[in-house]
Amino acid sequence: MQQQIDTLVVAGVGLIGGSFALALRRAGRVRRVIGVGRTLANLERALALGVVDEISQDIAEVAGRADLVLLASPVGQMGALMAALAPGLRAGAIVTDGGSTKSDVAALYREHLPNHLAYCVPAHPIAGSDMSGAVAAQYGLYENRRVVLTPLDETLPESAAMVAGWWQACGAEIHSMSAAEHDAVFASVSHLPHLLAFAYVDRVAAKDNAERCFDFAATGFRDFTRIAGSHPEMWTDISLANREALLAELADYRAGLERLSGMLERGDATGLNRLFSEARGVRSRWHQQFLRKG
Amino acid sequence: MQQQIDTLVVAGVGLIGGSFALALRRAGRVRRVIGVGRTLANLERALALGVVDEISQDIAEVAGRADLVLLASPVGQMGALMAALAPGLRAGAIVTDGGSTKSDVAALYREHLPNHLAYCVPAHPIAGSDMSGAVAAQYGLYENRRVVLTPLDETLPESAAMVAGWWQACGAEIHSMSAAEHDAVFASVSHLPHLLAFAYVDRVAAKDNAERCFDFAATGFRDFTRIAGSHPEMWTDISLANREALLAELADYRAGLERLSGMLERGDATGLNRLFSEARGVRSRWHQQFLRKG
Repeated sequence: MQQQIDTLVVAGVGLIGGSFALALRRAGRVRRVIGVGRTLANLERALALGVVDEISQDIAEVAGRADLVLLASPVGQMGALMAALAPGLRAGAIVTDGGSTKSDVAALYREHLPNHLAYCVPAHPIAGSDMSGAVAAQYGLYENRRVVLTPLDETLPESAAMVAGWWQACGAEIHSMSAAEHDAVFASVSHLPHLLAFAYVDRVAAKDNAERCFDFAATGFRDFTRIAGSHPEMWTDISLANREALLAELADYRAGLERLSGMLERGDATGLNRLFSEARGVRSRWHQQFLRKG
Repeated sequence: MQQQIDTLVVAGVGLIGGSFALALRRAGRVRRVIGVGRTLANLERALALGVVDEISQDIAEVAGRADLVLLASPVGQMGALMAALAPGLRAGAIVTDGGSTKSDVAALYREHLPNHLAYCVPAHPIAGSDMSGAVAAQYGLYENRRVVLTPLDETLPESAAMVAGWWQACGAEIHSMSAAEHDAVFASVSHLPHLLAFAYVDRVAAKDNAERCFDFAATGFRDFTRIAGSHPEMWTDISLANREALLAELADYRAGLERLSGMLERGDATGLNRLFSEARGVRSRWHQQFLRKG
């Protein structure tokens, strides 16, 4: 059964929220989209681009009309949005989000929407990008992308199934896991490398010969540091939200670097070659699979 | 004045050596190219592809005919190649190389070609790639790329000028610096990130939930780890050759990660946001300049 949405409220009309609205509309699954945000200029652009049908700077004003609410703001703003939603939300209206960390967002649902948890479906669409704002919204963003659902114990299976169906209508593939498992996996394959890249650029910039170094940085440097171009506030939120998992990742990685330094000190060519060969093999197999997923 | 080369000997007919031969030939600066290597199949491919005119598995055999020798093998093989060259090399024949580290290569020249140093011009063409073998050779590889010359104290200015002219004929831009400065700069912007990427993939692969992690790794992971697909033997050579500079880089980076972990532990949002913002700003300015260089 295809579940139709009469009114969708999207809080944060950027890449994630705007693309969801566009894809759902193209799939014929939503009648009316209300865009909510802090920046009037971005909302007006979203309206002009046809990403949303109506705009508001106050989610409390429009909460009562929503069949589905997508919180697509930075995680740091989600608590306030939920609090503003709570009084007006209709019984049975579904609330979901696009936050990159899930244990902290689960705690926010519990704090701000304690009587509505059966209809709350925490989610993480895996579609990051350096772009932001309404102009970043695009129809096909979620095609063949993954969306991870991390339902609460209280979430009704029907609520999760509806959210899954809407994301599938956008072309996405659905995975479910616990918030804790989600946060551990993403600490490892996303959050840690972002921190490593930020820290690396910081160290090069601090060098006496930084200008000279940057002058000779080439394509390897470019790709390795691309994620250091990511949004600072968003990554401060993510780092602190997933602090425990990240500290464990950092400790493990630092221990790895210590062993690597030891191999260099000892001139251990065999050890270095083994580490590099194995890493290359693993990365190459991963890349083959990644390409196959499209 | 355009210096013509009658006979060029290229030891190691892969991306670096093969592309040099092709570009020089297209520029009309070389009459005959002899390809030298260990693997007959690769040499025969180079011959079939027209990258070289003649092949040999023993550089000693052809040393006496060379006006210019380019050592484009892994650095680990260069000492043996120089030793084999030494007896037959004509007075005044220029010897250069494409090694990624320069202090160690300078030491090899001194050890194996002590009577020929006036004609030895250590060099590093900045044109890395994951590809290798004769099939990787391409005409335009060096267009707008940089070549760093690190002449020895004994190198005649005329020798360095000739090598510079040939690289310029391939489309490259020439920079000169000391071997020590070269190695410090490349430890920072190339060698360290390679080690960090290898070490990162190694740590993810060691996790209990590695399969799950790789399954959710996406484009950020892909770009951050691309250089972990680089050649293990080559990177073992480079790591050990530039060990001192790399150990200093690793120590500095590990101290940076320790401070970052401290910020996370303290929940220092201001500190994290400042670090991320500054790194993003630096990286963004670097990338603008990099794009302008073409």
